Amino acid sequence: MASTKSPEEEHPVKTFGWAARDSSGVLSPFKFSRRATGEKDVRFKILYCGICHSDLHIARNELGWTTYPLVPGHEMVGTVTEVGCKVTKFAVGDTVGVGCLVGSCGSCDNCCSDLENYCPKFIMTYQSVDHDGTVTRGGYANEMVADEHFVIRIPENLPLAAAAPLLCAGVTVYSPMRYFGFDKPGSHIGIVGLGGLGHVAVKFAKAFGVKVTVISTSPSKKDEAINLLGADEFLVSRDPDQMKAASGTMDRILDTVSANHPIMPLIDLLKTNGQLVLVGLPDKPFELAVFPLILGRKGVNASSIGGLKETQEMIDFAAKHNISAEIELVPMDYMNTAFDRLAKNDVKYRFVLDIANTMVVP
Amino acid sequence: MASTKSPEEEHPVKTFGWAARDSSGVLSPFKFSRRATGEKDVRFKILYCGICHSDLHIARNELGWTTYPLVPGHEMVGTVTEVGCKVTKFAVGDTVGVGCLVGSCGSCDNCCSDLENYCPKFIMTYQSVDHDGTVTRGGYANEMVADEHFVIRIPENLPLAAAAPLLCAGVTVYSPMRYFGFDKPGSHIGIVGLGGLGHVAVKFAKAFGVKVTVISTSPSKKDEAINLLGADEFLVSRDPDQMKAASGTMDRILDTVSANHPIMPLIDLLKTNGQLVLVGLPDKPFELAVFPLILGRKGVNASSIGGLKETQEMIDFAAKHNISAEIELVPMDYMNTAFDRLAKNDVKYRFVLDIANTMVVP
Repeated sequence: MASTKSPEEEHPVKTFGWAARDSSGVLSPFKFSRRATGEKDVRFKILYCGICHSDLHIARNELGWTTYPLVPGHEMVGTVTEVGCKVTKFAVGDTVGVGCLVGSCGSCDNCCSDLENYCPKFIMTYQSVDHDGTVTRGGYANEMVADEHFVIRIPENLPLAAAAPLLCAGVTVYSPMRYFGFDKPGSHIGIVGLGGLGHVAVKFAKAFGVKVTVISTSPSKKDEAINLLGADEFLVSRDPDQMKAASGTMDRILDTVSANHPIMPLIDLLKTNGQLVLVGLPDKPFELAVFPLILGRKGVNASSIGGLKETQEMIDFAAKHNISAEIELVPMDYMNTAFDRLAKNDVKYRFVLDIANTMVVP
Repeated sequence: MASTKSPEEEHPVKTFGWAARDSSGVLSPFKFSRRATGEKDVRFKILYCGICHSDLHIARNELGWTTYPLVPGHEMVGTVTEVGCKVTKFAVGDTVGVGCLVGSCGSCDNCCSDLENYCPKFIMTYQSVDHDGTVTRGGYANEMVADEHFVIRIPENLPLAAAAPLLCAGVTVYSPMRYFGFDKPGSHIGIVGLGGLGHVAVKFAKAFGVKVTVISTSPSKKDEAINLLGADEFLVSRDPDQMKAASGTMDRILDTVSANHPIMPLIDLLKTNGQLVLVGLPDKPFELAVFPLILGRKGVNASSIGGLKETQEMIDFAAKHNISAEIELVPMDYMNTAFDRLAKNDVKYRFVLDIANTMVVP
């Protein structure tokens, strides 16, 4: 059941944000509305919102299923302003965040296993149809309302703007790193790609205490990989000699790259029983040759964000180990420039919108 | 160091078998030689040898690296005739077998983990260069000699001819089924392909006590899959309705098919966290789309035979559960007809050569 009312009128509470209107992906100020605070809902003022590469893809309709107007943003943090009468976990004034999900069926095997991220009926924070039939709108906005089950508590010691990207980029790497054993003592792991996801993965790897090698096409990233992020080694994937020397040396590799690229050279870097885990979303299928896998009982897996329980675990772990994203904090009217720069991978390592301080609400 | 002597003269002990001479793959009687029994060697009279699909591929040089003359065969069983002075595990008169491997480095991480099958220097039973520089020759022959580490004890209660295929086909499915958790109580597993490998996999699955669905292109195999082999269900992979109905129902799938085929329809059959394990060797790479993997944290793995310790464990497990291959026992002079029929998948389910009774030794 799709809503037939205008975005400003479909809900009782007037809201304001920025939206893309067409596949140019250019965003501009946008008046819309959000629901009143339900009995299990948490309402919060958005302070910061990270800019995820997915926001750009979807704003420009690169996946082919965008409907406009679109309010992106699934890395938002802020301060609770109102809670429903049956909310038990949060109170007004708490610092909270919302990541990629705002709903799921609540009853399937996945939901019952704290894997709402794999529920076939999950509701994304933007661009999904909500329980009430309206389209969800994301965090490039002045406020948010969500069921408390999908709200994350942000620990006090985390720098708030730099914590925002953990809600998507952070859990997207943390979850598979835990599930696939990247935290096993004595491991040597590889992280492919040093962008928004990869740079946080390196930080988690060091907190797990494992040896981490960054694998990148760009030799220019070596200095920061090692000296800023703490990687142990840096491997230029376009250098055949370096790749050959590293053959068979890694237990697991996390591939964060969304551009199309070959994976068989990564398989070659793995030891026997090694696992490659993909968290990027290239638009073309990979070519997977069986022989190199068979020769070492190797595998290729993929993973998508994480469940809510694990997202909270991730951010608590990040707080304990002083992990947050490296960010460039930008004002709201820099939004479209940020998208253009992101499209050229010109960011170290995540743009975060300084919403409360810079978004002019009419 | 390649041997420069003729096959008949390179070793002191005259031997006799059948060999392919060129890429026609046609086999004919062949005089060659084997080494004298070394201090750690077990020498045995070959009674039976299974015909593996790999024998056919390699005899016809379909993988491109065959050297002739070639004596295939890596599923051989027989009776010990002589043991070296330092052999501790076997005595004259014992019933033994040799599978795909006759050597490895003995000192790498894989060898030290009982994974000689993943040793980069493993020596295959035929078509490998042995420690002494000669080319190894397989079990289509009247006798074999191998280091005791690579010799398997065949339990008394197994029918000997039908046990032979376990040494390759058996361990090729048993090893990944154990490693990847196909034996977990309550599992629903799929077995793709009902040939030499698949039919044994179904038997192991039933011994593990899990629910097993055979997935095949051939509806004609349903009756035997269920009534002879004990499968719980049968799924025709070319039937879109059946495939759709089975979507998301399986925990793990073992794919035994070596013909080129799409794997994404198999991925769709898996539940969240499901794993597809490949043991066939198609000659073209698979197309692997990431999105279906990401939506359920699924993976694609591959596995090759098993280590020696696990091969012994497999055959002891088979004996305990009265598992052996379904075979068609054929005389030696049926060899080339058997290859022709195998090329058309016209066998239920494994040819075994009745060597001692039918091979005419000049």
